[in-house]
Amino acid sequence: MAKSKNAITMPVATRTTTIKSIDCNSTLGFKGDKAAAQVLLTALNAEMAELQNTLYAEHKHKVLVVLQAMDTGGKDGVIRKVFSGINPQGVKVISFKAPTSVELDHDFLWRVHAAVPAKGDIVVFNRSHYEDVLITRVHKWIDDKTAAKRMRQINNFESMLAEEGTTILKFFLHISKDEQKIRLRSRLDDPTRAWKFNPLDLEERKYWDAYQAAFQDAISHTSTAHAPWYIVPANRKWVRDLAISTVIVEKLRSLKLKYPEPAEHLDAVEIED
Amino acid sequence: MAKSKNAITMPVATRTTTIKSIDCNSTLGFKGDKAAAQVLLTALNAEMAELQNTLYAEHKHKVLVVLQAMDTGGKDGVIRKVFSGINPQGVKVISFKAPTSVELDHDFLWRVHAAVPAKGDIVVFNRSHYEDVLITRVHKWIDDKTAAKRMRQINNFESMLAEEGTTILKFFLHISKDEQKIRLRSRLDDPTRAWKFNPLDLEERKYWDAYQAAFQDAISHTSTAHAPWYIVPANRKWVRDLAISTVIVEKLRSLKLKYPEPAEHLDAVEIED
Repeated sequence: MAKSKNAITMPVATRTTTIKSIDCNSTLGFKGDKAAAQVLLTALNAEMAELQNTLYAEHKHKVLVVLQAMDTGGKDGVIRKVFSGINPQGVKVISFKAPTSVELDHDFLWRVHAAVPAKGDIVVFNRSHYEDVLITRVHKWIDDKTAAKRMRQINNFESMLAEEGTTILKFFLHISKDEQKIRLRSRLDDPTRAWKFNPLDLEERKYWDAYQAAFQDAISHTSTAHAPWYIVPANRKWVRDLAISTVIVEKLRSLKLKYPEPAEHLDAVEIED
Repeated sequence: MAKSKNAITMPVATRTTTIKSIDCNSTLGFKGDKAAAQVLLTALNAEMAELQNTLYAEHKHKVLVVLQAMDTGGKDGVIRKVFSGINPQGVKVISFKAPTSVELDHDFLWRVHAAVPAKGDIVVFNRSHYEDVLITRVHKWIDDKTAAKRMRQINNFESMLAEEGTTILKFFLHISKDEQKIRLRSRLDDPTRAWKFNPLDLEERKYWDAYQAAFQDAISHTSTAHAPWYIVPANRKWVRDLAISTVIVEKLRSLKLKYPEPAEHLDAVEIED
């Protein structure tokens, strides 16, 4: 397919990519405006719905999308904008909350493994096993040695999933500290969104630099060929949505999905009255 | 709200309602055509998306939608048409397959209970615990006494769910035997849908009358005020989708959902730079 002049380019994060080097306000080379992006996103939504239908029918590939971000980074917005229009039967969203006491009595990958996609499924993780090397690390509930061990365990776990047919795409929605302030303020002032305001978010905001460092370390150590991290400039919601949708659709296209071959001679099947 | 001239009326099944008395081709008094129905459905989709958002925010009510039908009855189609456009985070679709050996080692409600909606959730059952008084009964894997016991157990179970805040809506998608033949044929002839064809469907079709009798008995004994059955004329897909969407949206409206009150003085909250 020829690249349109409105092509968007999303580089995979590598071991040497720094979060700081990515401009949260970037438009990723997109030449159009917000309205033009919306037109493209609508087309990508329709294509994703069609690709998902084939993925489900083929019953071969498994797709896992991981969303991580600072508070107000836009995880919920991505789910609503990028995955709306898809058959709800083919997309499962798993929101990982603070672990329960039963979950804490197991290894940190236990509850995650239980939720990974089966053949034909798309599963979206709203937060994930990465919290176990993020919030835990920022608050020093685990030391660096434990964090390093967990990142190694994550790589082995994701490698196994990939070997067994899972396509893994991980997105860090990258907003600036100023943008978070604007979003927290706007949440407070909107009666349909004020319920999302959590006073604890203000406490977490004080650890901004420690979170950025923990994200940097996690992304550097766990962005692999089979489970790449994308650092998504997310101050502009329309860039964020278009970028993520583009990556997912291009990946699904590359799987060369196809409807299963029907058994031969289906046209000879007799259906009784 | 004033009834529009295009109002559709979906009566709840009662103990004396017979499936046979419902015309599979009915338009339920709808005066418009398919295109007019599509306009209404699109508006209902948007309203359902908004209501779901409030349901999720309020975090109080639980909503369970049960879909049952003969093969090709349109369960997958309903999920795609009625629930598309809703935030995928707020709707979970659970497809119950033939039970595993572990599931069979438990009571028949065990796997079902594990999947019911939590506060703020909409869960759609694509097949359900009703299979345990349908296919099982048609093939005489259980006797009438066991079926009667299970229906009593289902009523007690659903009553408990309702008492604990679950709104339950059950839909039987009612197609005619002729319509099923047309749909099986069309599935065979369409390369994008031939994969859905299962030769066993032709075997099950031979038990049509026994299935209708089992559905009749199940609906008669389990349509209650807190968990009503709706018998949906489903030969016309647009009538089916419009009818189900109407019932769900009217029910959600009746819950008087509202966004939680924000804590007072949110406007006085200071956000540090």
